[in-house]
Amino acid sequence: MSTEKTRTIDELGEFGLIDHLTSGFIKRQESTSVGVGDDAAVVDHGAYVQVITTDMLLEGVHFDLVYTPLKHLGYKAVVVNLSDVYAMNAAPRQITVSIGISGKFSVEALEEFYEGVKLACEKFNVDLVGGDTTGSMTGLVISVTAIGTALKKELTLRSTALNNQLICVTGDLGAAYMGLKILEREKQLHAEDPGFQPELTGYDYILERYLKPEPRVDVLLALKEAGIVPGAMIDISDGLSSELLHICKASECGCQVYDERIPLAEETKEAAAEFQMEPLVAALHGGEDYELLFTVPLSGFDKVSSIEGVSVIGNITDKKGSALLVGNDGGTIQLQAQGWKALAKDE
Amino acid sequence: MSTEKTRTIDELGEFGLIDHLTSGFIKRQESTSVGVGDDAAVVDHGAYVQVITTDMLLEGVHFDLVYTPLKHLGYKAVVVNLSDVYAMNAAPRQITVSIGISGKFSVEALEEFYEGVKLACEKFNVDLVGGDTTGSMTGLVISVTAIGTALKKELTLRSTALNNQLICVTGDLGAAYMGLKILEREKQLHAEDPGFQPELTGYDYILERYLKPEPRVDVLLALKEAGIVPGAMIDISDGLSSELLHICKASECGCQVYDERIPLAEETKEAAAEFQMEPLVAALHGGEDYELLFTVPLSGFDKVSSIEGVSVIGNITDKKGSALLVGNDGGTIQLQAQGWKALAKDE
Repeated sequence: MSTEKTRTIDELGEFGLIDHLTSGFIKRQESTSVGVGDDAAVVDHGAYVQVITTDMLLEGVHFDLVYTPLKHLGYKAVVVNLSDVYAMNAAPRQITVSIGISGKFSVEALEEFYEGVKLACEKFNVDLVGGDTTGSMTGLVISVTAIGTALKKELTLRSTALNNQLICVTGDLGAAYMGLKILEREKQLHAEDPGFQPELTGYDYILERYLKPEPRVDVLLALKEAGIVPGAMIDISDGLSSELLHICKASECGCQVYDERIPLAEETKEAAAEFQMEPLVAALHGGEDYELLFTVPLSGFDKVSSIEGVSVIGNITDKKGSALLVGNDGGTIQLQAQGWKALAKDE
Repeated sequence: MSTEKTRTIDELGEFGLIDHLTSGFIKRQESTSVGVGDDAAVVDHGAYVQVITTDMLLEGVHFDLVYTPLKHLGYKAVVVNLSDVYAMNAAPRQITVSIGISGKFSVEALEEFYEGVKLACEKFNVDLVGGDTTGSMTGLVISVTAIGTALKKELTLRSTALNNQLICVTGDLGAAYMGLKILEREKQLHAEDPGFQPELTGYDYILERYLKPEPRVDVLLALKEAGIVPGAMIDISDGLSSELLHICKASECGCQVYDERIPLAEETKEAAAEFQMEPLVAALHGGEDYELLFTVPLSGFDKVSSIEGVSVIGNITDKKGSALLVGNDGGTIQLQAQGWKALAKDE
């Protein structure tokens, strides 16, 4: 037990807290290859490795049942875990799904949830192999664990970015956060005036990005076909800024990314305008995009640029501790791991 | 989705609910050997198999922080999962630990919890390889997943009991439930009179059985040394009655157990007397003992009887659907899967 007094959980932050709490654990099993600190743990089975990842989703923190259909929630609870498996360049194989449910749920409601779980199993070819079902005094609690496999030589960690490698992202960023903002706004208006009918037409793209994220298996396949094994890779669950800092910390490097190269959908820009906010802020700090952030050698530029859905946004540097966002005018700002929660507080 | 209308969750029960919700899932991965429905899932790796199990523990449902030290809680949260791994005759290797915490928790409180997790890792030689840490609006939420390995030929399922095999249990039963009853009583007295000092001396054994259960690794080692591979095995988490019914259902057999052979500690009997309840009821329906229930061939009687901490309590029969408790007078009653929750309601 540490004798130093006494930081609060807020001061440590989520990642500092995990580091702090798990720092005294010694590795005991030969098969444990990577423990806490990547998208997933790695267990060695010889020529291939197994990756293991788990996520907890709590009602009122991670989802709001007022505007989240249970089938979507079941699908998303699985997919956010598969996203971590894919971010290791691994193929998902098995999942467990545990739920704590309060008395307000009917069997039909749970069937809806499991329909979403089943859809994800079918689409991504994984088996539901276990779980736990329990009563909850306090709303819906979901915990999913996913297991995947990869060839050892193809495994892609956060810690393997190299100086001068190109930094790439898939798809576009910030859309999920703007989708959530719209849902929250309509919920608020409805709460103030129960006669108010939520107006969600025209927001389909950003709503779907929030409610039904899709891991970028297509890009991983295209990279494989092009013969590119990413240097480092991570999925974008907490916003681009936070994920870039994870890679820089784990790989002991710096980075610079160019703000005008960060991909933003038109729908994201339009929604941001409604809230008079910069869409770039949603991309950097909004989170829940479940796109991939990865690095490739400079020599891979032509190949990677030709893959649909990939944007090259910057490069890795050897300046440890320096994660820079470069503006149009050449000015730079240091990226912060602000994340979702802090963003919500600032507004 | 089922079209039949419409049973409530209470009517289905926990196990019926799991069966119902997971019945539409098709196995997709060749490596998935056992899915939902045993102590753990089984993933095939050739000569050896991997077992995977997960448990969710919720504040107010599974534990009460008024009388549960956080270090004990961390230890127990791990151990109840390892118990499932051992019940497959497997050795635990890795765990993940996810927690949802409300604002009332300090870093020191979490350190206490992780001290307990660490103690379990040290004692049972497992690695903490991952997890998730998140805010919770509603009390402490814990989800642990454990992974273990076994030689394929030594794996012990619920479904492999055979007619005439002897039914054995380790240790004694019902103690954990009586420990909980004492803690609940003292909490209640303190709530009624804040000046009241809880009196827990003399109850050490049953309190420890509730707060710090220990998987019976000693018995598994003794069985191995004696050359006995159990027929079927399960850990006793929901009470002897419920676990016997699991084995009978999975193995498509019946059973008869003799009430006077069910092992009860003196401390359990004394505490039960204070509550004017039958200690056998605690053993049958109390749960949380984390002892092992297993079957062995008749030919193993002498060997298994000589192992310290093992009681032979009855035998498997070919009468499917008939799980009988035989009384002193030769009278029989059909065992019910009453379990913890139902017991609490009945009182």
